[in-house]
Amino acid sequence: MSWKDYLREALLGLEVYRTYEYRPGLVRLDANESPYPLDDADRDTFAHELGRIAVHRYPEVSGRPLREALARRFHVEPDMVLPGNGSDETISILLTAFAEGPHGRGKVLFPVPTFGTYEASAVARGLAPVKVPLREDWQVDEGRCLEALERERPALCFFASPNNPTGNRFDPVALERLARAAPGIFVVDEAYADFSGQTMVSLVGEIEGFCIMRSLSKIGLAALRLGALVGSRDLVAQLDKVRLPYNVNAVSMALACALLENPGRLEDRIRKVAASRRWLAEALAGIPGLKVFPSDANFLLVRTPVEGQRVWQRLLDRGVLVRNLSRPGPLQNCLRITAGTPEENDRCVQALREAIA
Amino acid sequence: MSWKDYLREALLGLEVYRTYEYRPGLVRLDANESPYPLDDADRDTFAHELGRIAVHRYPEVSGRPLREALARRFHVEPDMVLPGNGSDETISILLTAFAEGPHGRGKVLFPVPTFGTYEASAVARGLAPVKVPLREDWQVDEGRCLEALERERPALCFFASPNNPTGNRFDPVALERLARAAPGIFVVDEAYADFSGQTMVSLVGEIEGFCIMRSLSKIGLAALRLGALVGSRDLVAQLDKVRLPYNVNAVSMALACALLENPGRLEDRIRKVAASRRWLAEALAGIPGLKVFPSDANFLLVRTPVEGQRVWQRLLDRGVLVRNLSRPGPLQNCLRITAGTPEENDRCVQALREAIA
Repeated sequence: MSWKDYLREALLGLEVYRTYEYRPGLVRLDANESPYPLDDADRDTFAHELGRIAVHRYPEVSGRPLREALARRFHVEPDMVLPGNGSDETISILLTAFAEGPHGRGKVLFPVPTFGTYEASAVARGLAPVKVPLREDWQVDEGRCLEALERERPALCFFASPNNPTGNRFDPVALERLARAAPGIFVVDEAYADFSGQTMVSLVGEIEGFCIMRSLSKIGLAALRLGALVGSRDLVAQLDKVRLPYNVNAVSMALACALLENPGRLEDRIRKVAASRRWLAEALAGIPGLKVFPSDANFLLVRTPVEGQRVWQRLLDRGVLVRNLSRPGPLQNCLRITAGTPEENDRCVQALREAIA
Repeated sequence: MSWKDYLREALLGLEVYRTYEYRPGLVRLDANESPYPLDDADRDTFAHELGRIAVHRYPEVSGRPLREALARRFHVEPDMVLPGNGSDETISILLTAFAEGPHGRGKVLFPVPTFGTYEASAVARGLAPVKVPLREDWQVDEGRCLEALERERPALCFFASPNNPTGNRFDPVALERLARAAPGIFVVDEAYADFSGQTMVSLVGEIEGFCIMRSLSKIGLAALRLGALVGSRDLVAQLDKVRLPYNVNAVSMALACALLENPGRLEDRIRKVAASRRWLAEALAGIPGLKVFPSDANFLLVRTPVEGQRVWQRLLDRGVLVRNLSRPGPLQNCLRITAGTPEENDRCVQALREAIA
């Protein structure tokens, strides 16, 4: 016998998530990060907070300071907030809690294409994915979703809105109808909602099992790994049993709380990024043959008129890194481009023009 | 239908892990933290590192800088190190990977009493615990463990050595025999090994499925949440598929790496804590009726001659917080006391003398 005889078999089919090896000077538009570093005032705040932390002590065990700060931001109560070490952790907490119910193995419904972590994390935790293709305009196919809900009875549904990598918001009326029809948990993942200014948080508590997820990673704090789920008190109380104690470290918690106390600078940067995405969308639309999909997020999905992999490589040769999503199917010849600083956008547009020419 | 019809049933029987609500001025000897804050030189290092971090960028995706720093510390190769958001996360990664194998639901063997997270995390992930009582001297009962290994064929075994909350190291010869007999993964959790100076890391790669876990939480960096598993490359490669990308945030990673570059001050504090535990053990042994168990860790397990809960409360009334473990069974009237600063130890000894008198 060997330990391999006990390993979850589905792991053998998975790959470890990797990113491109960054080199200095590269224009990094691949990871949907904010292009704006902290300003000096933020840095002073951070230095001050770091000086106050008892590094030898454990963090507050439940992440309560962060729950309170996020509750104010989302206009909910602190005990409706489950903080995570990134949204990825809140996803895995949900999947773990619903991996196996009284009636057997859990199923997870999500539209495709979407954020790859729903499927990878589900498979690693023994849940069965139920994938429903988006329509050609990247909107949810309500009819097919309703059929799948009825047929598969998924314990969990994940709808990222704005959706990654397509960039668009899903029709909230359709989402609400699906949420009401879903038998279990219905998550609207609003990781990119700061750039659309739209949220469905008001439905938490209105619809049984409805929750949203938010993230601080796209709005300038990716290094800190902070995400959250907002759900009913009942649900959060159960998920808290799966959440590891001390899951949010004290430094990330203190820095984020301090920044959220005075969110003005954060909001300024969010507005700048949304404006940058609008500028970039217009500029890219001027490149002959390039299809630019509408976006409510901090990135754009584009379809290249020539082979996507080749365009991606030519961009990289010109020092611009974007995400290559091109594969047979609906994302054929598609690239995902994060909105950057004005200089980065200029370089990207110029490089893309040359790469396609 | 409601989401509750899909929830893992075992969660209903679990409680959320909580700690005592700390109040200012309390002598905190309840959480096995280091009593020593960072010194000024460390604080300068931290401020410098924080200033260098691109907070708007994601951390290195695999935690590689930390793998390299910990590999140097443990004298292994970086691809034998799986970094975690605390050891708790590496435990949950193991449990997730082995929760269900080709032959069904995974089982987890551990001795009792021990660190409660093995059981709680296993139950939350659908594994069946196999508990083998320790002998009266808190050593492993090798015969019963071998029987249980043969009968239950556990996918995972966890042996904390030094063990929490008993404080003692397990006989390494017995552990090695058990590890060779175990059919799956055999983990020696060395969270407290810095205080014993003994490690079984040399058996990683020698015995199929053998691994150790280490932590930076007990040696002064609890706020940062950093733990690691050291195992064979094969095993780490599989566990990396369950590990969430970016699981170690950039700030904790940078601060820990900087501190591990010059571990002298860290080692000084470890030696001071080990000396503090020896002093405290002697002083407590002088309290009439109090049984002090031998310890290789940074804490002591004691048995009070009168009702443990009452002694715990009287200590608290005197401003000293320790961990109350008293419950029917082998830990009846037992308290766990973390070694503190000389002043904290004095206050604890004095308060305990009064509480028992």
